[in-house]
Amino acid sequence: MTAPSCPIPKLNFDIITLGHGSGGVLMHELLNKTVLELFRNDLLDQQHDGASFELSGQTAFSTDSYVVSPIFFPGGNIGDLAVNGTVNDLAMCGARAKYLSLAFILEEGLPINDFWTILLSIKNAAEKAGVQIVTGDTKVVEKGKGDGVFINTSGIGTVHPKARIHHRYVQPGDAVILSGPIASHGIAVMSQRQGLQFETSIVTDSAPLAEPVMALLDRFGEGIRFLRDPTRGGLATTLNELALASGLGIEIQQSAIPIDEQVEGACEMLGLDPLYVANEGAFITVVDQNIAEDALALLKNIGQKQSSTIHHPPSIIGTITPDHPGKVILNSRIGGKRVVNLLPGEQLPRIC
Amino acid sequence: MTAPSCPIPKLNFDIITLGHGSGGVLMHELLNKTVLELFRNDLLDQQHDGASFELSGQTAFSTDSYVVSPIFFPGGNIGDLAVNGTVNDLAMCGARAKYLSLAFILEEGLPINDFWTILLSIKNAAEKAGVQIVTGDTKVVEKGKGDGVFINTSGIGTVHPKARIHHRYVQPGDAVILSGPIASHGIAVMSQRQGLQFETSIVTDSAPLAEPVMALLDRFGEGIRFLRDPTRGGLATTLNELALASGLGIEIQQSAIPIDEQVEGACEMLGLDPLYVANEGAFITVVDQNIAEDALALLKNIGQKQSSTIHHPPSIIGTITPDHPGKVILNSRIGGKRVVNLLPGEQLPRIC
Repeated sequence: MTAPSCPIPKLNFDIITLGHGSGGVLMHELLNKTVLELFRNDLLDQQHDGASFELSGQTAFSTDSYVVSPIFFPGGNIGDLAVNGTVNDLAMCGARAKYLSLAFILEEGLPINDFWTILLSIKNAAEKAGVQIVTGDTKVVEKGKGDGVFINTSGIGTVHPKARIHHRYVQPGDAVILSGPIASHGIAVMSQRQGLQFETSIVTDSAPLAEPVMALLDRFGEGIRFLRDPTRGGLATTLNELALASGLGIEIQQSAIPIDEQVEGACEMLGLDPLYVANEGAFITVVDQNIAEDALALLKNIGQKQSSTIHHPPSIIGTITPDHPGKVILNSRIGGKRVVNLLPGEQLPRIC
Repeated sequence: MTAPSCPIPKLNFDIITLGHGSGGVLMHELLNKTVLELFRNDLLDQQHDGASFELSGQTAFSTDSYVVSPIFFPGGNIGDLAVNGTVNDLAMCGARAKYLSLAFILEEGLPINDFWTILLSIKNAAEKAGVQIVTGDTKVVEKGKGDGVFINTSGIGTVHPKARIHHRYVQPGDAVILSGPIASHGIAVMSQRQGLQFETSIVTDSAPLAEPVMALLDRFGEGIRFLRDPTRGGLATTLNELALASGLGIEIQQSAIPIDEQVEGACEMLGLDPLYVANEGAFITVVDQNIAEDALALLKNIGQKQSSTIHHPPSIIGTITPDHPGKVILNSRIGGKRVVNLLPGEQLPRIC
């Protein structure tokens, strides 16, 4: 758990009950002493049915629900995941997140201690990402009709004025850059699954990605053609989606894809292809081939800063090609070639 | 069910499975043939991690998760409820909803037929409310870890230029207007609860409320001091929240509160106080006493139009007073006075 320590407020209950979703006295006590106190800001303090603020220019809007199981895993929990995930969806639109909504579906019986830990992680992640939580909602469902905590965050962000991010701008010859090593989030969560626990020091890569994305856009503008974070379904799914949407082919080098040795070992042990395992702190960007080396250098620079939230090393993992349109081809370490398909079914349910 | 009829698309499955939440082939087939086809618009078609659009001026942002049980009830289902609920939260900020996000948490085993019916209701409700669904998310949880369907909608709207809506503008002497009869949503849902079914023609009042709110703001501007829709916890909770926040008292006349005879009968039968029963198509507004009669007349006019979505009759139900600050006092039909408190616990769980 990465939450900062902070004493839990004095409450007249130690688990969540249906009454906490009623709109009545219990719900007021819970929210006033936890959420509203912790995330205090002028917009949230309006305590309206929504938040109002002045906005102008190109705006990005995104939503995600988080159902990760278990809710606590090495390096994080559902709370910081829910902040970083939506902040990153906005970053992939070329936008810096400004405002987040925060909606909980709590299961009756959830320990208040767990709820508090999650709230602290949310606060911490929101501060790191420079985003304000301005409106929210809390519902409670009966025991057995939920699973501890589900969170939805929706976000509003300001699009970088130089951003021209779309699969239609992707061209043959463009380079595919991956910002950092893959598969650690999925493996960190799997390592805590009931019946599957294994000893490892692998932690989630969950991190906000706006900083490197804004730096790329500042410097290279339209040279940055496409951005996407390979979460559910992993790198393979994201690349397939791009190939299908753009009608172009993608060729990648297995040897160029960064992966932590321990993560690779765990994937082997579990029989998982790391290309399909979820990430929460990495992104791919497709860039004009003429700026590829400079863009890589910029990401390396950022990744090496002490204050950096991103993981390194970044790597140029492949190129866009007019051949085999709609398909992703992997050149393996041992010299073979294979098609990397969309996952036909489900590999790792509830990973985010 | 209020959904328009429309043939269900041909799919290779008839229930939701975990694979539909994987990011892989199954999820693409489900979303492409249902959600993306049904809600087709330029922003959604971007198929980005979020939607981007130009926005300017005072903007309202709101979120709500919907966990109503059962998901189908007389007059509606969780789908139209999720659209109207968030559209109305924005209306209560004095804003007209423009863009909605739509996030599902589906339980494994949900019949595709049910999912399709809900999608059609969402489409229908969004069209009625004049709002576009521009971004979304779909997660699937194992059987027994959810309850059919949970929906989160978040919304962005443009605040009316004349809107000055806040409890701090509420003054002694102001009139409290209720837009229509209370308690029918809660009773309609209760009538379908397992072990509690009863025969009734009561239907939910779920409806979009932006039209009457915009008309009030157009005409009376700052004369409209406060707006709130009494959903969870009902009219009693909303009035108590206003009394507590403003530090003023509220006096209401029981005889002036509109309620359908059948709804009142059902409340008596179930031992429920209709003041605490949820509404989804009514709002209260606190207005300058000098415009109260005109505002009432305007609401009456709108309610009587054939195309109107709101229910009538509206009524002036009370006044703001400097006496008994923070308290709501009811003058009963039989001449008594009683304090109307915040609900101490839970009356009707999962009503929205």
